[in-house]
Amino acid sequence: MTTAEPPYVLSSRAAGVATLTLNRGDKFNPLSEEMLVALQSELDAIKADDSVRVVVLAAAGKAFCAGHDLKQMRAQPSHAYYRKLFNQCSKMMLTIQHMPQPVIARVQGIATAAGCQLVAMCDLAVAARDAKFAVSGVNYGLFCATPSVGLSRNVSRKQAMEMLLTGEFIDADTARERGLVNRVVPVEELDAEVGRLASSILAKPAVAVAMGKQLFYKQLEMGVEAAYQLAGQTMACNMMDEAALEGVQAFIEKRVPSWKA
Amino acid sequence: MTTAEPPYVLSSRAAGVATLTLNRGDKFNPLSEEMLVALQSELDAIKADDSVRVVVLAAAGKAFCAGHDLKQMRAQPSHAYYRKLFNQCSKMMLTIQHMPQPVIARVQGIATAAGCQLVAMCDLAVAARDAKFAVSGVNYGLFCATPSVGLSRNVSRKQAMEMLLTGEFIDADTARERGLVNRVVPVEELDAEVGRLASSILAKPAVAVAMGKQLFYKQLEMGVEAAYQLAGQTMACNMMDEAALEGVQAFIEKRVPSWKA
Amino acid sequence: MTTAEPPYVLSSRAAGVATLTLNRGDKFNPLSEEMLVALQSELDAIKADDSVRVVVLAAAGKAFCAGHDLKQMRAQPSHAYYRKLFNQCSKMMLTIQHMPQPVIARVQGIATAAGCQLVAMCDLAVAARDAKFAVSGVNYGLFCATPSVGLSRNVSRKQAMEMLLTGEFIDADTARERGLVNRVVPVEELDAEVGRLASSILAKPAVAVAMGKQLFYKQLEMGVEAAYQLAGQTMACNMMDEAALEGVQAFIEKRVPSWKA
Repeated sequence: MTTAEPPYVLSSRAAGVATLTLNRGDKFNPLSEEMLVALQSELDAIKADDSVRVVVLAAAGKAFCAGHDLKQMRAQPSHAYYRKLFNQCSKMMLTIQHMPQPVIARVQGIATAAGCQLVAMCDLAVAARDAKFAVSGVNYGLFCATPSVGLSRNVSRKQAMEMLLTGEFIDADTARERGLVNRVVPVEELDAEVGRLASSILAKPAVAVAMGKQLFYKQLEMGVEAAYQLAGQTMACNMMDEAALEGVQAFIEKRVPSWKA
Repeated sequence: MTTAEPPYVLSSRAAGVATLTLNRGDKFNPLSEEMLVALQSELDAIKADDSVRVVVLAAAGKAFCAGHDLKQMRAQPSHAYYRKLFNQCSKMMLTIQHMPQPVIARVQGIATAAGCQLVAMCDLAVAARDAKFAVSGVNYGLFCATPSVGLSRNVSRKQAMEMLLTGEFIDADTARERGLVNRVVPVEELDAEVGRLASSILAKPAVAVAMGKQLFYKQLEMGVEAAYQLAGQTMACNMMDEAALEGVQAFIEKRVPSWKA
Repeated sequence: MTTAEPPYVLSSRAAGVATLTLNRGDKFNPLSEEMLVALQSELDAIKADDSVRVVVLAAAGKAFCAGHDLKQMRAQPSHAYYRKLFNQCSKMMLTIQHMPQPVIARVQGIATAAGCQLVAMCDLAVAARDAKFAVSGVNYGLFCATPSVGLSRNVSRKQAMEMLLTGEFIDADTARERGLVNRVVPVEELDAEVGRLASSILAKPAVAVAMGKQLFYKQLEMGVEAAYQLAGQTMACNMMDEAALEGVQAFIEKRVPSWKA
C-alpha cells in the first residue's frame, strides 16, 4: 500500500477569498515542476471563477519560498529542459498579473530567488517582521535573471542590482521602504493584516477591480498619451456598469451602495 | 437681476508667477466640465505667454480637489458622455506636462481621485502637513483608471496598487517619501515654501527650463540610447543659447550672470 | 625640457579589481575632452580583459566630479562641437552600462552635473557621508539634459525634476533613500565598504555576473512578457555553464563550490 503524496498546493475558499498555500514547508516550498503545475492549475481555476474575489498566496512552514528546486534542476542538465522549466515558471508568474482577482502574498521567513520573484509579481504583499528577501542564485553561479524581471519592476535599479550581484538579504522593513512589500507586521498579526487588505478589496465591486487591475499593468508599459487613451476608455466602460452607477448614486445620496453580493 | 457665477478658476500673475486657484472651495473644487474648461483655457493662455515663468496650481477652501463632479457625471449616464469627459480631463492633465513652464501643485486638505492625479501630473508639489491623498473611486465602484496613469508614474507599483484597490488615504509625509510630493510643510508655511521653489526657478533662464522640461518627459519614454541621443541634441542647442553662453562665462569669471529679465 | 602632464585617469589592478581614479583633483575632476578620452580608453581596455571582474570608479582630491569642463566648453561655442562633446560623453556613460563587469562609483565630496550622471550610470555606488549630489547646470543656464537620463532612471520623477529645476544639492543619506547610491559610510570607511561590495562580486562566477548585468538593463526596456522571454533564455544559458552546474551541485551537497579562479 502506497502513501499518497500530500498536495503541493493547499486550496481553500471562504467568503470570496481563495487561499493557496505552498505545501512543502519542510523543504522551504521549492518551485519544483510539480509545484509549478499545481500552482498553475489552481490559478487557472480561480481566474475563471467569479465567486473568488481575492487570492491570498501563502506558504506552509518557516519559510515562504526558497525558489526553484535546485536538486531537480541539477538532475536534468539540458538546455531544452531549462528553457521549458523557466517558461513554465514565467507563465505562472504572468498568470498572477493577468488574472482578474488581486493576489496578495503572505510572507513569513525567507523569500529567495524565484520565491522573491513570486512576492514581486503579486499585486500586493504583506510580510512578517522577520521575513527576509534575496535573489541569491548568483551565490551558486546562477544569476537570478527571471526574478530580476519582477524585482526591477518593484524597487529602484541600483537597489535591485545590489541584491542581484551580492545575493544578500534585505529585511522586511527595507523591503517595504523600497516598494517590494506593502505592509510589515509581527508574524502573529500576519493573517489579520492580510485579512484587512482582503476585506477592503471584497467591499469593492468585482468589475471595477478586474477592469482596474488589467488597465493598471497595461498602461504601465505605454507612453503617457496612449496610457491616457486606454485609461479613459476603461473608465468610461467602468462608469456604465451598474455597480458604478449605483455606487456613485449612493455617494451623492450619502448612503451605503446597495450592491449584489 | 441675476447674480453672476463666480469664476471656476481665479488667475493672478505677479513677477513671472501665474497662480491658478480652483475656486469651488465649498464643494472641494470638483473637476466639473466647467472647471475643466476654465483650467484648460487658463493653461492654454499661460503656455503661450512668455511673461509667465512658473505656474502655481492652488485651491480655495479646506481641500485641494476631490476629483470629478460625481453629481454631474451621474446625471448623464452615457458612454459617449464619459468618453468625452475623460478625454477633456486627460487633455488638461497632459497640457500641464506639455507646457513650457513648470507647474507646482500647492496642496492642502484632501486630494482625491482626479484631484490626486492633478498633483501627480504637476512637475512639482508642495503639501501642507495635514494634506491627504487617495484614489478613492473604487469605494463607489469606479476604479481610478486615469488617475492611475499619473500616480503610477510617481510612486512604485505596489504602493500605487494598494491605494487604487483599497481607496485608503496616505498622509503627506508618506506621499513625500514615495515621490508623490516634493516637500511637506506646516500649512501656514505653504505659500512661503511654494514661493521658494518658484523663486529658484525664476532665477534660471526660461529657455533652459523650457527645453529641459520638454526633454525630461520625452526621454523618460525612450530606451536609454535614444534618450541620450535626444538629450545630447537638446543640450547642444541649449548651450548655443545666449543665456547659457553668458551663464557659463559668468561661472568661469566667478560672477553673477547678467541675464535679461 | 617639458614636464609631462600627469595622466587624466590613474589605473591600477589588484586581485580582479580595476580601480580608475579621475586625476584632476585640484580642479574637481572635470570631464574635459581629455578626461573623456582617457576614461573611454581605460573602460574599453577593461571590457575586453577577462582578468578584471569588478571596476571601481574613484576620484582624487576633495570632490568626485564637478561635471563638464566649462572653460573648455565655453572656448568653442559651436553647435557641432557641443554635439560631438555630448556624444563622446554619452558614449562613455553607456560603455559603463554595456561592459560585462559591474562598475562601483566611490564618491566623496561633490558629484554635480555630469559628475552626478556618472554616479547614476554606474551599476552600484558607495558614498561618503559628506558627499553631495546636484544637477546644477540650470544655475548657469544649461539644463542638465544628458545627466537627467541617468538621474531619472535612478530616482523618482518629481525628485529628479526638483533637482534639475532648482540645481540644489541633496545629501548622501537622501541620495541613498531615493536610490541614487547604495550605501553611505563615514569617509574613512569608504575604501573598506567599496572593498566589501567588490569582494562579494568577486566571489561569484564571471559568466553569471556578465550575463546577468547585460540581461538586467535589456529587460528593463521591454514589456514584461518580452522581458520574461529574454530572461528565461539567459537563465537557461547560464544554468548550462559549468560554473552554475558546479555551484548548484555544491549547494545541494552543502559544500563550497570549486570554481576556477
